[in-house]
Amino acid sequence: MPLLVVGSVALDSVETPTECREKVLGGSAVFFSYAASYFTPVRLAGVVGDDWPAEHTKLLQSRKIDTTGLQTIPGEKTFFWRGKYLPNMNDRETLEVHLNVLGKVRPTLPEPFRRCPYVFLGNASPEVQLHVLDQLPEPRLVVADTMDLWINVQHDELLRLLSRIDGLVMNDAEAKLLTDDENLVRAGRAILQMGPKFVAIKKGEHGAMFFSQYETYVLPAYPTPQVVDPTGAGDSFAGGMMGYLAEMDGFDPQTLKTAMAYGIVVASFTVEDFSLDRLRTIERAEVEKRLAEYKKMLSF
Amino acid sequence: MPLLVVGSVALDSVETPTECREKVLGGSAVFFSYAASYFTPVRLAGVVGDDWPAEHTKLLQSRKIDTTGLQTIPGEKTFFWRGKYLPNMNDRETLEVHLNVLGKVRPTLPEPFRRCPYVFLGNASPEVQLHVLDQLPEPRLVVADTMDLWINVQHDELLRLLSRIDGLVMNDAEAKLLTDDENLVRAGRAILQMGPKFVAIKKGEHGAMFFSQYETYVLPAYPTPQVVDPTGAGDSFAGGMMGYLAEMDGFDPQTLKTAMAYGIVVASFTVEDFSLDRLRTIERAEVEKRLAEYKKMLSF
Repeated sequence: MPLLVVGSVALDSVETPTECREKVLGGSAVFFSYAASYFTPVRLAGVVGDDWPAEHTKLLQSRKIDTTGLQTIPGEKTFFWRGKYLPNMNDRETLEVHLNVLGKVRPTLPEPFRRCPYVFLGNASPEVQLHVLDQLPEPRLVVADTMDLWINVQHDELLRLLSRIDGLVMNDAEAKLLTDDENLVRAGRAILQMGPKFVAIKKGEHGAMFFSQYETYVLPAYPTPQVVDPTGAGDSFAGGMMGYLAEMDGFDPQTLKTAMAYGIVVASFTVEDFSLDRLRTIERAEVEKRLAEYKKMLSF
Repeated sequence: MPLLVVGSVALDSVETPTECREKVLGGSAVFFSYAASYFTPVRLAGVVGDDWPAEHTKLLQSRKIDTTGLQTIPGEKTFFWRGKYLPNMNDRETLEVHLNVLGKVRPTLPEPFRRCPYVFLGNASPEVQLHVLDQLPEPRLVVADTMDLWINVQHDELLRLLSRIDGLVMNDAEAKLLTDDENLVRAGRAILQMGPKFVAIKKGEHGAMFFSQYETYVLPAYPTPQVVDPTGAGDSFAGGMMGYLAEMDGFDPQTLKTAMAYGIVVASFTVEDFSLDRLRTIERAEVEKRLAEYKKMLSF
């Protein structure tokens, strides 16, 4: 089944303790769509400025990602983020953010995109996410991401969004902030009360937790010795997860758990190099091989 | 098979964000032996002062733990620790430590204890751990714990110990410190090069990692909504793990992984109340029930 993602498309400058990269391909919708493309046809909607290199669009198209929803706004610049990872490679500081075109233009979905049954609302303001949701006549499954900024400054809009979506993906610090509870098990269950049918809490190098009315569980990250750049890991996780759900055209508990595992495995590749550089070297077969190792790792 | 543990026996004062407890039963050998007692006969060796309440010994004996190796030293006081947990309940500060008797008397093992096939050297200086090891003619499996202090001040003795033991249990920060590597996968593999046949790295609320020449894996913690006091979780983990190995009288890869899972499950009970208060309410059946849930949680 086709999968729609609406989210940021960015140029990222990344500093790690050993290396730097300037203005490489990034953004939540980019990592998401590339990760999801191993599983299902993806439609990407977002906005960029006229500094956006055409080769980035070509790379996405080479994975059969439909980029007709990627609008270039003349006279504007692409969203830019500069971040620095601490030596533990799990915590990071944002050094610079220029919203640029992202602060000025809301994504408008091409007509065929609106009938996509599977939808991911990548990190954007809840107000923009609601605006996108209003363009979708009858989605089958809508999952959204959010961040600390929106929890703080658009709390009411976020609650409105939560009452209208099926699933929420967020990181551990954000889940604690949203619920004012330091225990993630309680936090996840409290978020279920806010509306979504399921919640996936990303814990970075420690994996991810899942909550629904049926179950609570945690799956660890795949242990890779080669963590080069964690940027995009969370979006790759969401992309792998949603990609698999769209491929299966289902979201029963067992499918959701397998989807979580796929998300974790795809994210483990993302962190092994900068930008999409590691994902560019792999095909579905490598994903399946690592998933099998991961499954074996968790069996006793 | 009988399991010997030599380690600290303590009185702990614990502050959490919501509650405090004064001078409750604690110490690495206490948590370890109680946790292990669900699986196998345990022999406990350690030293206490004459302030040690007789009821604590009786509690251990009620679990059929052999306390003939617990020496009371007249005129001395029991090891005392006071700690405070931060709101995340994973990080803690040590507010007070009084080594007391622990700094003066080395444990001497009763003759029958020396023929125990399974041995756990709880956290003590490597020099004391080596002293204990020298008293054991032919142990089948020796596993040790250590801590940051010894990595810093008895580095050579620690390396000597590592070349003589089968397994090492330590927490994530200690593994990073010992290897000067922030990536736990690389750190664990580097520690294998120092001698032990396997290494278990405890990650607190994030579970534990395992390393041997055959495999690397990570298992998450059992997600409990009720984290009251994490003190002793790591020692309970080690106790559950070693208890199961001694019960099975084996340590092939599959047995080791199941042992890790038992350790994680027993530790998840420990954190649900202060001291041994939660473990005191459960029997082996509760451990088995939660292990089954844990196994199901990791299956997809």
